[in-house]
Amino acid sequence: MVDSRFLRACCRQPTDKTPVWLMRQAGRYLPEYRALRERYSLLDLCRHPELAAEVTLQPLRRFPLDAAIVFADILLPLLALGIEVTFVAGDGPVIGQPLRDPITVSRLPDPDETELVPVAEAIRIVRQELPPEIALIGFAGAPFTLASYLIEGGSSRQFLETKRFLLRYRTEWELLLQQLTDLTIRYLRLQVVAGADAVQLFDSWAGALAPALYREAVLPWTQRVVREIQSLGVPVIVFSTGTAGFLDVVAATGAEVIGVDWRIELDWAWQLIGNRAIQGNLDPVWLLAPRSDLNRAVQDILRRAGGRPGHIFNLGHGVLPETSPDQVAYLVELVHEWSFSPQD
Amino acid sequence: MVDSRFLRACCRQPTDKTPVWLMRQAGRYLPEYRALRERYSLLDLCRHPELAAEVTLQPLRRFPLDAAIVFADILLPLLALGIEVTFVAGDGPVIGQPLRDPITVSRLPDPDETELVPVAEAIRIVRQELPPEIALIGFAGAPFTLASYLIEGGSSRQFLETKRFLLRYRTEWELLLQQLTDLTIRYLRLQVVAGADAVQLFDSWAGALAPALYREAVLPWTQRVVREIQSLGVPVIVFSTGTAGFLDVVAATGAEVIGVDWRIELDWAWQLIGNRAIQGNLDPVWLLAPRSDLNRAVQDILRRAGGRPGHIFNLGHGVLPETSPDQVAYLVELVHEWSFSPQD
Repeated sequence: MVDSRFLRACCRQPTDKTPVWLMRQAGRYLPEYRALRERYSLLDLCRHPELAAEVTLQPLRRFPLDAAIVFADILLPLLALGIEVTFVAGDGPVIGQPLRDPITVSRLPDPDETELVPVAEAIRIVRQELPPEIALIGFAGAPFTLASYLIEGGSSRQFLETKRFLLRYRTEWELLLQQLTDLTIRYLRLQVVAGADAVQLFDSWAGALAPALYREAVLPWTQRVVREIQSLGVPVIVFSTGTAGFLDVVAATGAEVIGVDWRIELDWAWQLIGNRAIQGNLDPVWLLAPRSDLNRAVQDILRRAGGRPGHIFNLGHGVLPETSPDQVAYLVELVHEWSFSPQD
Repeated sequence: MVDSRFLRACCRQPTDKTPVWLMRQAGRYLPEYRALRERYSLLDLCRHPELAAEVTLQPLRRFPLDAAIVFADILLPLLALGIEVTFVAGDGPVIGQPLRDPITVSRLPDPDETELVPVAEAIRIVRQELPPEIALIGFAGAPFTLASYLIEGGSSRQFLETKRFLLRYRTEWELLLQQLTDLTIRYLRLQVVAGADAVQLFDSWAGALAPALYREAVLPWTQRVVREIQSLGVPVIVFSTGTAGFLDVVAATGAEVIGVDWRIELDWAWQLIGNRAIQGNLDPVWLLAPRSDLNRAVQDILRRAGGRPGHIFNLGHGVLPETSPDQVAYLVELVHEWSFSPQD
């Protein structure tokens, strides 16, 4: 294994400094990203490996991050299923025809890899450009999260349609999740073969569910993806939000690293997930706060991590578009500087 | 104290059956409510005590619930501050001019009780009509939740503006919360004097915050409301969602009863809140599921409560408008029937 801070932390091995990367570190808060977006649509960026690679590398040119994450949209696999997705500025993705009729599930076509291959290509390019000690993370939405976009037709607050579908049409739900699981495995395998050093599964909206329902209707599918990717020899991060009440069940996915949001204190979350690495968990809003407050929040997380091997510093969700790149630079420096001298 | 199942459970005294009431038990899922709403606006209902009383009593005429909750809108106290609120069908309340400029806080007028008095009047009417063993619950939004509506201008997913305000303008935040706290206490005092047997504080969106921020910027104000209401001799329920990661901090509000959502298992939540009563925690979506599944979910909650005194059965949030009244009738019956014969 290459001596990467990030990969060592995934295996809970000691590192000289706490590794740090940020969800959505490539994105709207960067003027160079916005400049590209003036010329290209989101899908253009995803479909052209050189562009996706460029966007992936943008934050790495600015900040001494310990990992890059390939730039792609979480809904690309749905495009591979022939589903029409439009990306409305500010509103997030919108699905032309949300899946509501259970009969539709059996009619989903075999996935067309054309939409997925450029992501693998981008990974190949980025891996060549990055120094070996900087890890490159591949990613995909977990099957439940993909299903929720497909059924809701976009972002949602309550995930009511998804839950209703799940409760009413259990057979079709299982069939749908199976197809999305196979697709996700195929997609992530392409990424790993292309050079991804680790994979993050976004089970982002799992917190909409009661623990029992997650355990029964979601966990087995996420587990299957985790196992398949691990068999390729790379570690897996499972990230979710709103699951503080059942982190032990999320840990049962078997992932090496559990990503947590800010709705729980890091030490308490770590206790709940047991012998695994932990990723998190600064509320992205702190990057909009005065530095003295940001200092305090970062210090609190590092103090709770207590210098134990296996902590990867990250936000509890993506960087907000309103964030100043200067604040991100400051945060990354802070984490590296303080990781071995947490002042109490 | 009157021998009410609900009030006994608040004090963790044994009851013959598990008491049950449902958040939004008076509302859109009832045809008789929709019939009234064809003739009256939401504000009309809130401003006319006879109408509010009628709506409050509607579910009690149908189902053997153990408590009524006065019908009112959570934003009435904002109207008392002269803030323009419009109620858009389906979209929830919209605030004409969201509070974004910190200077505005010092310009908030003294509250005008005209908007609040009808709620107290409705309580007086309902208390006379209800048999003494059925408790009548008053309610208000907790100061943070009121502030979040005021600052966001309506419902929100991320509560970004609220958190940003809190982090940037701490002095004005404290001033705002103090005013909202005073207003809430005044409002709830009117309700208790009018005959409310207990009070529920909706700290609904507290789960948007990291535990440390809740502890620092929200908890003291909720605590103050709880103490003031307790000094009037009635028990307080503090309800929140998304707080499974810091229920111990929510319990530090000092409320007799902690209301929890479905994102945590009831026995685990109870362990976290310690020696208090607990209210919850069925995901409202189960009321849309086949009865065999609903049975299983209700049974699981009752089994986790284990017949210990101090469990008040409720949903983890409000009844969904799509719910059939028959399912509600079935649920209430189920809870009463099974509460003392939980089959394992």
